[in-house]
Amino acid sequence: MAKNKYVYLFSEGNANMRNLLGGKGANLAEMTNIGMPVPQGFTITTEACCKYYEDGEILSDVVTKQIMDGLTKIEKMTGKKFGDKDNPLLVSVRSGARVSMPGMMDTILNLGLTSEVVEGLAKLTNNTRFAYDSYRRFIQMFSDVALGFDKSNFEKIIDKMKEEKGVKLDTQLDENDLKEMVQKFKTLFKKEMKYDFPEDPKKQLLEAVKAVFRSWENPRAIYYRRVNDIPSSWGTAVNIQSMVFGNMGEKSGTGVAFTRDPATGEKKLYGEYLMNAQGEDVVAGVRTPQPISDLEQQNKALYNEFVTIANKLEKHYKDMQDMEFTIENGKLYMLQTRNGKRTAKASLKIAVDLVNEGMISEKEALLKIEPRQLDALLHPQFDSEALKKAKQIGKGLPASPGAGSGIIAFTAERAIQLHNEGKKVVLVRLETSPEDIEGMAASEGILTARGGRTSHAAVVARGMGTACVAGCQDLIVDEENKKFKLNGKIYKEGDEISIDGSTGLIYGECIKTVDAKISGDFETIMSWADKYRVLKVRTNADTPNDAKTAFNFGAEGIGLCRTEHMFFDADRIPAVREMIVSRTVEERKKALKKLLPMQRKDFIGLYKAMQGKPVTIRFLDPPLHEFLPHEDSEIKALAKEMNISFEELKNTVAGLHEVNPMMGHRGLRLDITYPEIAEMQTRAVIEAAIKVKSEGKFDVIPEIMIPLTCDSKEFNFVRDIIKKVADEIIEEKGVELSYKIGTMIEIPRAALTADEIAKTAEFFSFGTNDLTQMTYGFSRDDAGKFLDIYYERRIFESDPFARLDQNGVGKLIKIATDLGKSVRKDIKLGICGEHGGDPSSVEFCHNAGLTYVSCSPFRVPIARLAAAQANIKNPRK
Amino acid sequence: MAKNKYVYLFSEGNANMRNLLGGKGANLAEMTNIGMPVPQGFTITTEACCKYYEDGEILSDVVTKQIMDGLTKIEKMTGKKFGDKDNPLLVSVRSGARVSMPGMMDTILNLGLTSEVVEGLAKLTNNTRFAYDSYRRFIQMFSDVALGFDKSNFEKIIDKMKEEKGVKLDTQLDENDLKEMVQKFKTLFKKEMKYDFPEDPKKQLLEAVKAVFRSWENPRAIYYRRVNDIPSSWGTAVNIQSMVFGNMGEKSGTGVAFTRDPATGEKKLYGEYLMNAQGEDVVAGVRTPQPISDLEQQNKALYNEFVTIANKLEKHYKDMQDMEFTIENGKLYMLQTRNGKRTAKASLKIAVDLVNEGMISEKEALLKIEPRQLDALLHPQFDSEALKKAKQIGKGLPASPGAGSGIIAFTAERAIQLHNEGKKVVLVRLETSPEDIEGMAASEGILTARGGRTSHAAVVARGMGTACVAGCQDLIVDEENKKFKLNGKIYKEGDEISIDGSTGLIYGECIKTVDAKISGDFETIMSWADKYRVLKVRTNADTPNDAKTAFNFGAEGIGLCRTEHMFFDADRIPAVREMIVSRTVEERKKALKKLLPMQRKDFIGLYKAMQGKPVTIRFLDPPLHEFLPHEDSEIKALAKEMNISFEELKNTVAGLHEVNPMMGHRGLRLDITYPEIAEMQTRAVIEAAIKVKSEGKFDVIPEIMIPLTCDSKEFNFVRDIIKKVADEIIEEKGVELSYKIGTMIEIPRAALTADEIAKTAEFFSFGTNDLTQMTYGFSRDDAGKFLDIYYERRIFESDPFARLDQNGVGKLIKIATDLGKSVRKDIKLGICGEHGGDPSSVEFCHNAGLTYVSCSPFRVPIARLAAAQANIKNPRK
Repeated sequence: MAKNKYVYLFSEGNANMRNLLGGKGANLAEMTNIGMPVPQGFTITTEACCKYYEDGEILSDVVTKQIMDGLTKIEKMTGKKFGDKDNPLLVSVRSGARVSMPGMMDTILNLGLTSEVVEGLAKLTNNTRFAYDSYRRFIQMFSDVALGFDKSNFEKIIDKMKEEKGVKLDTQLDENDLKEMVQKFKTLFKKEMKYDFPEDPKKQLLEAVKAVFRSWENPRAIYYRRVNDIPSSWGTAVNIQSMVFGNMGEKSGTGVAFTRDPATGEKKLYGEYLMNAQGEDVVAGVRTPQPISDLEQQNKALYNEFVTIANKLEKHYKDMQDMEFTIENGKLYMLQTRNGKRTAKASLKIAVDLVNEGMISEKEALLKIEPRQLDALLHPQFDSEALKKAKQIGKGLPASPGAGSGIIAFTAERAIQLHNEGKKVVLVRLETSPEDIEGMAASEGILTARGGRTSHAAVVARGMGTACVAGCQDLIVDEENKKFKLNGKIYKEGDEISIDGSTGLIYGECIKTVDAKISGDFETIMSWADKYRVLKVRTNADTPNDAKTAFNFGAEGIGLCRTEHMFFDADRIPAVREMIVSRTVEERKKALKKLLPMQRKDFIGLYKAMQGKPVTIRFLDPPLHEFLPHEDSEIKALAKEMNISFEELKNTVAGLHEVNPMMGHRGLRLDITYPEIAEMQTRAVIEAAIKVKSEGKFDVIPEIMIPLTCDSKEFNFVRDIIKKVADEIIEEKGVELSYKIGTMIEIPRAALTADEIAKTAEFFSFGTNDLTQMTYGFSRDDAGKFLDIYYERRIFESDPFARLDQNGVGKLIKIATDLGKSVRKDIKLGICGEHGGDPSSVEFCHNAGLTYVSCSPFRVPIARLAAAQANIKNPRK
Repeated sequence: MAKNKYVYLFSEGNANMRNLLGGKGANLAEMTNIGMPVPQGFTITTEACCKYYEDGEILSDVVTKQIMDGLTKIEKMTGKKFGDKDNPLLVSVRSGARVSMPGMMDTILNLGLTSEVVEGLAKLTNNTRFAYDSYRRFIQMFSDVALGFDKSNFEKIIDKMKEEKGVKLDTQLDENDLKEMVQKFKTLFKKEMKYDFPEDPKKQLLEAVKAVFRSWENPRAIYYRRVNDIPSSWGTAVNIQSMVFGNMGEKSGTGVAFTRDPATGEKKLYGEYLMNAQGEDVVAGVRTPQPISDLEQQNKALYNEFVTIANKLEKHYKDMQDMEFTIENGKLYMLQTRNGKRTAKASLKIAVDLVNEGMISEKEALLKIEPRQLDALLHPQFDSEALKKAKQIGKGLPASPGAGSGIIAFTAERAIQLHNEGKKVVLVRLETSPEDIEGMAASEGILTARGGRTSHAAVVARGMGTACVAGCQDLIVDEENKKFKLNGKIYKEGDEISIDGSTGLIYGECIKTVDAKISGDFETIMSWADKYRVLKVRTNADTPNDAKTAFNFGAEGIGLCRTEHMFFDADRIPAVREMIVSRTVEERKKALKKLLPMQRKDFIGLYKAMQGKPVTIRFLDPPLHEFLPHEDSEIKALAKEMNISFEELKNTVAGLHEVNPMMGHRGLRLDITYPEIAEMQTRAVIEAAIKVKSEGKFDVIPEIMIPLTCDSKEFNFVRDIIKKVADEIIEEKGVELSYKIGTMIEIPRAALTADEIAKTAEFFSFGTNDLTQMTYGFSRDDAGKFLDIYYERRIFESDPFARLDQNGVGKLIKIATDLGKSVRKDIKLGICGEHGGDPSSVEFCHNAGLTYVSCSPFRVPIARLAAAQANIKNPRK
């Protein structure tokens, strides 16, 4: 790209210049080059936008000059003159970032009109009504977008005029009405803004350009970028295009169309249009547009021309196209084409069809699918007809996708009870805690008042594939009286509700749900993905049930089994608590002995579910106080149950209290204080493996994972305990069994000293949740309070807990990877935690040379696709 | 060093081989080489010790063979034969690590004696009593050290025999008594151990060697190493030396002596000796040794020989020597020499004297002083006579050095009150919190039941230079009834106690204290230190008083002023709380306006105290809930005081609650949420600087430091706020004022992205307290619970909060330093936090290329010396 060139004529660009010209600009250029009927114009580059911000929101002289030069060239091409009343050039001014951000930024049409030019336009077109209609539209848009004068002020005038004239539609106002309207607009503008509505078209143009640049930073654009991981540094381009008019009369019109059905992927032209209208009317919905097929009857030649163009564009771009067109006095103009947005289902069908039609390769097909979209195909959904009739009663954060309907329960116990009675349940809690897990698993959906997308409820629900709406701030939960209040209405236990974990919406009734079906296209795509990826995909699973789900979704092993989740079961927690209050090692061993057969059974179930694929078992991680109650009344009850004094139990609870539990006595620190815990868990892992192996159906190679390592000596201490117990059992039983011992890398120091650790650790698994917390120095539980302001003030652009921070956390991962490989060339490297299912993080893991990612069962297909895309983009040697 | 050579004759070694031969072995070799009368022998290397542990606590064949070869050589040299009854060679077996660890490991004397050999020895020396005295000593030592048979068993026999014979001293037992004693020893041994006391001298020798190796890992050695930062990987050497006998009769004896007085440093021979005794008797204290000067009368020739040797050794080693000698039948033998331990005062005097005597250079003198020792010279001390009579009532952790005496107060308020009445106070608390600061400052000493050496009380007390004993577990505090119980006794408010923050001891009375004096030698040493160091030394000071103390100790600026400490004052906290409960920005600004003049006054005081040296001011750091009460009763009282409802205040407190406050809403995160706080603090910093500068005495260049940065954009956001306010004030006042804006690097991510941050940050200060917490993933407040076990199980060898962890935290510092310099070549790099005053950490900072360290006022001289030593060892280019 030429340096300091900020303006490109459409004829100077092409589709590959998307970063510089934006998507719209690049495609306008491309269409121009392949001979499509595109109104002439030029693009002001994204670099000009960045420069605008660097210069302190000023349009520099060099950019201004190039815009004016561009304008002159357009004048020459069109033979029209900007601001000329006899043969005026009018232009549209539209945003256009690298990636489409529909509706997020601003557009101004009909620019170039003044009180003089409008008269010329009327004369020239012999259509005064059209001219004044265009002018009043311009005044509205320009005032709103460029001058900050709210357009609702004008809407009031229009409504009042229609009332006075006794008409319903804008189109029913005649040319005199519109002239009057323009006058009223200007009078109001002057009164409110204390200056006249601008009359200099060149100034208008520059103001419009600046307005579009500014709209890059409007709150909805910022929000959209954050949600879609678009860096603010990209900036937007601005397209200046000579106007063609769909509102010039009944032989004019405007429309949008897709080359295939964006909902189903079916191969047929799909779209709608409106005669005598400008683009905004199609969107506004005042008049109902006609289906594109009607155009065939209305103007067969023009329709055929459009079909030819559409096919040509699809072939050219090798993808389904979303096109905007305008018909001006019977002549067709293309205003935009882009790869069309589509549903997940359509996305898969189109990709497979395009390959079958010989238009693209399998690799290209894989790259066309947004992995995140697959999520929608993996969870139960509301029946779409039933949903239309349902009444929305509130909204929270979409925390775990899918639809959940049932009757309300306020405690985990009650949820389990109702579930066992064969009822569908939605669990409603202020917030969930680890003791609720069983109840959560028994529920169709989980609704919480507190916590964000990374709260306990959200994380666990996503792991389970259960719908969850979290952080519903309007929800006032009264657990004691078994009711909640939401937007003024009371709901009681047993009442029916539904939640949509993909949208965050809450409904006051049971809505029918349908299980998602995995169609043949889905399978085809997954088989292609597996063909082209090298990164393995494992799953985070704590139960045989989760493991089976993941296995069916193609998981190649378990990357993380959190053994503590097994301890919260009602029949186990007494033994866990007995262990915690033990006064001696012997007492503790006695309690652990009770847990041993249960843990062993858990592992047998997991090994069987994975059918010989590797199973990574992480030893007990959370601080022990998580297993004890904290309220005096609960402590009293438990003390009685355990047959110890209230004071003693209270003392134990107090003694376990931590100022910063996240940075406290947890992970392998527990094993160092109480080696007998590690001994019991080792015994369970190894004995279970021997048992399953002895059945002869498949081999089992357990991978024991030590959590929270920060130092090699610390790791070795625990490793030695494990090895001793494991080898003793293996020798005692006289069997052959391989097992591995590795560690989580989730503490910065572990990453920094990974060479030391790799001397004895056979694998690393990056625990990016904790690693992110420690690297940033904020805890997931507390950061919610201030991170919103960080997004708002554009300090952070994405949630580091959802998208791996490559600059900081990623650097630690690279350091650890390099150090680990320097000592142990073939060290197995994985990642577990929320990031394992995030496509951009998966790509990072591929590029960083990891062996596998591990994610929740419902994210396995997403990770498989993302891994394939990563290897197609950057093949691993 | 030859490979696989594990045994060196004394004649094969020298003083430089300390790492391999240990201190004792290297010095025995050196003495041998310079012709001193040293009994012949050999040293088993530290590498043999490491190998012993690597081999699984087994003495390998290769080492065993070399020991036996060494023994043969000694036999040849001495003409005696090991295990021979006619002319027996007896040896001593002593430990000897690289650095002296007095009394921590084991020694066995008279090895080679058996029931046969003892008879031969009796005949040979014509001294049956001597032979059996040696033999019974050997049985005692060998049983205890090598065979794990407690020596107290033997002591009982000795005591009973003395009683039966009606004598008081061992020496009063005759040869028959001793023969009987040996028999009784053996009988008891057989009875208890179920095998005969070993009779094979070679086996005895190997067992003794193994016992000394094992003693490297005994609990007191492990503890000593941890306290003195000695790695366990060093191992100990073992010295096998032919015995000479101080217990051969009245012409024999043994003693220890120093070439200078180790208490005062005075140049005169200092020591004591005992005739007819072995070394252990001198230590045991049964008989009172004579001062070394008596030897002159007793045996002038021998005394002169010793003086000559002593002088020669001091000249040879260029340092004060601590020597052990034995006289055997009128002949002098040197058994050990080493650089003598000495008091801080003596250390300085000796270093200065040796330079004045032309024996060493200034640089060498500086290297001889242990920087940590200076601490003892900087705090008030108990009058030594008064201390002797005082009654110790308990013991806690020595948390902040110095002596504190006064009457007991249980609350900060009461302490202030009593202090204002002119009384000396010792504040006794369960634990201290930030609100106690004023009360702590008003006290002579602080005693707490909870918390370790890095607890709030300890850290603040060290900063203030106030004595503190923390974590006294026996202390049961009853604040409500204003009393505490300690080891069974009750102490009430108003009772007198004393605490010694250097030893942790607590006394039940007021003991007179004396202010430490800085003698001329101290000043001389400090002036030399300043001459040879390049690393600057600043101080952490929050008050003009601290700043003055530090200035007088040579601080070259303030490296850290924690502005939050200024907010806890009784007259300020209401405004702080008002700010916190503000409902709108306007309300908050109003409250901040009240704080502005107070902060400005603080800074004026600091600038003046530092007389133009740079002052680094860190903006508000702790989470806001630290400024609010948490108990309902207190909240109620405060709500009334603030004239708001209990519910509202309770809500505010609840809203500020954090799960992990260390990783919560604090540091610059507060400025991002409430920019008005940064605005107020900037105003105070800049206005104060303008005021002081306008007085014309000196220039002021404030350095504003932003805490807790994790990202460059985050830093820039706050920096922009500060810059705007500062520049506005400067322009408004029409003055010239330079200021800098920098950041703490205390979050791993800040270190990892330091290049981005350095683009706008003018300086970095490594906050190693927080950086250590985040890098290790454990919080200082919680780690105490499990770190003791880490030390016990040899996983950690030193406290990472006291000694900078160079492998992990240090790596981050290096990364940040390199990245920072890559962007801003002359970036100012400092360190603040506890590590700034730790000598080994200071050395690391010097080597890492930092500009300065900042430490508490009382550590400034220590850091100055440590910085000089670092530059002498590794001069900065």
